Amino acid sequence: MGARLVLRIDFDGRHAVGPGKIRLLEAIRDAGSIREAGRSLGMSYRRAWLLVAALNECFEERVVSTQLGGAHGGGATITEFGTRLIETYREIEREAHSANAGRLATLDAARRKPAPERQS
Amino acid sequence: MGARLVLRIDFDGRHAVGPGKIRLLEAIRDAGSIREAGRSLGMSYRRAWLLVAALNECFEERVVSTQLGGAHGGGATITEFGTRLIETYREIEREAHSANAGRLATLDAARRKPAPERQS
Repeated sequence: MGARLVLRIDFDGRHAVGPGKIRLLEAIRDAGSIREAGRSLGMSYRRAWLLVAALNECFEERVVSTQLGGAHGGGATITEFGTRLIETYREIEREAHSANAGRLATLDAARRKPAPERQS
Repeated sequence: MGARLVLRIDFDGRHAVGPGKIRLLEAIRDAGSIREAGRSLGMSYRRAWLLVAALNECFEERVVSTQLGGAHGGGATITEFGTRLIETYREIEREAHSANAGRLATLDAARRKPAPERQS
């Protein structure tokens, strides 16, 4: 599997966007609901809701818009800005990896090899 | 200050190198002691020692070598490999930033502006 970068974008001491929030946005996009998205990631509704609120508070434009009521108790959709945020994060990830492919391979080669398994 | 990337290098589920371990290595290099380095970062000796042990376990070569005893109770120095590890992490950080400068500026521009301060 090799060495892999995990990226967090820090805006100040208080706001950050990292892999957890981006995965949640992708899950909301796919599920159409904060509750279902949280469930698919093993996250409580409360936690998923707080992460969405933090994202909506971080940016000028909302990333998720919620619909109340309706036959299925409302739902949530990713806004155009939210879609761009996911794309930009994934691009940053790809670019960071490709700019550092050689360095990551060097570090991976320096890792301690697991001890060979004993015959039982 | 703008948007800033914080990078963690994940090797597998169990080993990772991120900003905390790198800052600790730099502090050990500067202080010549795990205890002093931890203290300068507001970290207990036990925590600093465990982070160093995790690094030494992660790679084939040690990153820190410790000297027992002596007039001042021993000390710790960064190995040549440890020096290369710090340098490589800092290079990865620089390259990831420069490959993504435009994207980070775009995200920073999309942030919610703080409310203007009220006259008191």
